[in-house]
Amino acid sequence: MSRLRKDPIVGRWIIVSSSRPKKPEDYSFEEPLDDVTPAECPFCGGNEAKTPPEIASFRPEKTRPNSSGWWVRVIPSKYPVLHIEGNLEREGSGIYDWMNGIGAHEIIIESPEHAIRLEELPESQVEKVLWSYRDRILDLERDSRLRYVLVFKNQGWTAGSALNHTHSQIIATPVIPKFVKEKLDGAKSYYDYKERCIFCDIIRQELSTPERVVEETRHFLVMVPFAPRFPFETWIYPKKHLCSYVDITKEEIMDFSRTLKNTLKRLCKVLNHPPYNYMLYSAPNRVPRRGHWHTLNDDFHWHLEIMPRLTRVAGFEWGSGFYINPTPPEDAARYLREVKL
Amino acid sequence: MSRLRKDPIVGRWIIVSSSRPKKPEDYSFEEPLDDVTPAECPFCGGNEAKTPPEIASFRPEKTRPNSSGWWVRVIPSKYPVLHIEGNLEREGSGIYDWMNGIGAHEIIIESPEHAIRLEELPESQVEKVLWSYRDRILDLERDSRLRYVLVFKNQGWTAGSALNHTHSQIIATPVIPKFVKEKLDGAKSYYDYKERCIFCDIIRQELSTPERVVEETRHFLVMVPFAPRFPFETWIYPKKHLCSYVDITKEEIMDFSRTLKNTLKRLCKVLNHPPYNYMLYSAPNRVPRRGHWHTLNDDFHWHLEIMPRLTRVAGFEWGSGFYINPTPPEDAARYLREVKL
Repeated sequence: MSRLRKDPIVGRWIIVSSSRPKKPEDYSFEEPLDDVTPAECPFCGGNEAKTPPEIASFRPEKTRPNSSGWWVRVIPSKYPVLHIEGNLEREGSGIYDWMNGIGAHEIIIESPEHAIRLEELPESQVEKVLWSYRDRILDLERDSRLRYVLVFKNQGWTAGSALNHTHSQIIATPVIPKFVKEKLDGAKSYYDYKERCIFCDIIRQELSTPERVVEETRHFLVMVPFAPRFPFETWIYPKKHLCSYVDITKEEIMDFSRTLKNTLKRLCKVLNHPPYNYMLYSAPNRVPRRGHWHTLNDDFHWHLEIMPRLTRVAGFEWGSGFYINPTPPEDAARYLREVKL
Repeated sequence: MSRLRKDPIVGRWIIVSSSRPKKPEDYSFEEPLDDVTPAECPFCGGNEAKTPPEIASFRPEKTRPNSSGWWVRVIPSKYPVLHIEGNLEREGSGIYDWMNGIGAHEIIIESPEHAIRLEELPESQVEKVLWSYRDRILDLERDSRLRYVLVFKNQGWTAGSALNHTHSQIIATPVIPKFVKEKLDGAKSYYDYKERCIFCDIIRQELSTPERVVEETRHFLVMVPFAPRFPFETWIYPKKHLCSYVDITKEEIMDFSRTLKNTLKRLCKVLNHPPYNYMLYSAPNRVPRRGHWHTLNDDFHWHLEIMPRLTRVAGFEWGSGFYINPTPPEDAARYLREVKL
């Protein structure tokens, strides 16, 4: 089973994964795989038997689970980095801390069709993907062992994807991940000082001087952030203050679907179909607990971050946490804004 | 000129670099370059005129700066991400913070020979490289505008290198970088609680149960850390408590040179000459200032971290700060320990 280990100096948790342990010689084969054919692809419609049984799906009424004909399908990862079975156990060993690898690792297959990217799907299909994100977060956050549910997508080999068939992933963790905690802590200290949500303040300032705005829709603001780690990094913020993605409305999901699709299309046009990652940040799981996390309603604001993977990350970035961005965000926003959709 | 921008939520600074601003189409050319020939290479002995004038060098007595015959040569970067000229200016713009891009960016050419890697150089040559790190930190930390001097190396395209001729880099920044501050803060809270250096405690614990030890020399411990972000990540710690690398002795440098060379050779043998980064972490600049940084002598401990670049970093890692390591550190240490040098 995987185990979580904590760095005693900076407090960062890592997962030593046992599902696919690697020997030195395994790393020399880390090269882009040829795409599998639809007949072999475990994510293709008709090949449902090639995957573990589904957890959930959007499919026509009266069709049975794990039969074909679905629109969106959620399955457990075949190579999970964390496991749902067992009790959470914490343990010390001198200066070091461990946890066993409790958590969840799921795959959201965004379409039964093989050779299509998320941004090429019809809006109604993207909507189903976005509903499945909500449904899975809602289900997983009821598990009191889990503290956070991260939904993310790896598009393309450079961005970490191993299978070309369009899909997102969910990893739910028994601790709040470091980067999420930094966002929560930053937003909380701003709120303590100003009694306003920092995300709402950013939205107001960006709309008043729109040089970094890519698009404003009825419910969303698409913008290049002021201090992006990567060139053409793009954030989608809901304009309405809402800490948790699970409380999104039907009308908002329809707008989000159109907005996400359009933003990805803009990035694809400007950057010639780049590899990218996106991450959906919602409030931590709201099960009753001591501590302040369950009172976050006022100071967190859900959002989505898209990171095209255009640059290599070198020793300076890994060593310092400083990032060097060779494209001013105002230029990136202009390129994206000017795309004719 | 480059500018520093701060993310208002998590407090991370980034550099928007103006020395090589990039348009969208420039990113599609990010592919491994063919190696230049020694005749064209600006870092080769004999081609001194192809670089900016040198800042320092190890060269035979009575030879002139910028003439050939040197062993190690330090030059300003031709594409600096930060600039040494000017006053440090801080500025706000609503919720956002800026600084102008004051700092230093230098290249340490580790050998006049073209087709050689650091670990293949004679120990006496590696020693000169290690002295030049010390000399440059010592010189740059006298500049009161600068708060930190990071020495690092990118070996191989994947690790961020653009030129194959063996070299290290130095970037000195006007703020303490986020990752360094996390180390300093972590070490300080441990010291406040235990009144012991956390690095010294780690060294003691690792030596008592040596499953993660790669090598112990007279002055150094080479180990795979308990919670490494990347497979085969390897740290070199001096056994003697010393906060700043600039106070290293002649005897220690000789041992460090042998130890660094041997550790890189171990990684090269086990992993077939992998791309890698290393970072040298020393205490922040010790100019008199308010705040607690100048009293760090007891709670920081200089060290070097080597990160082979074997895995791709995907959405989960970028989104959470969690890392998935598919090789248990104890296995990695065993592979490295068993190498016959």
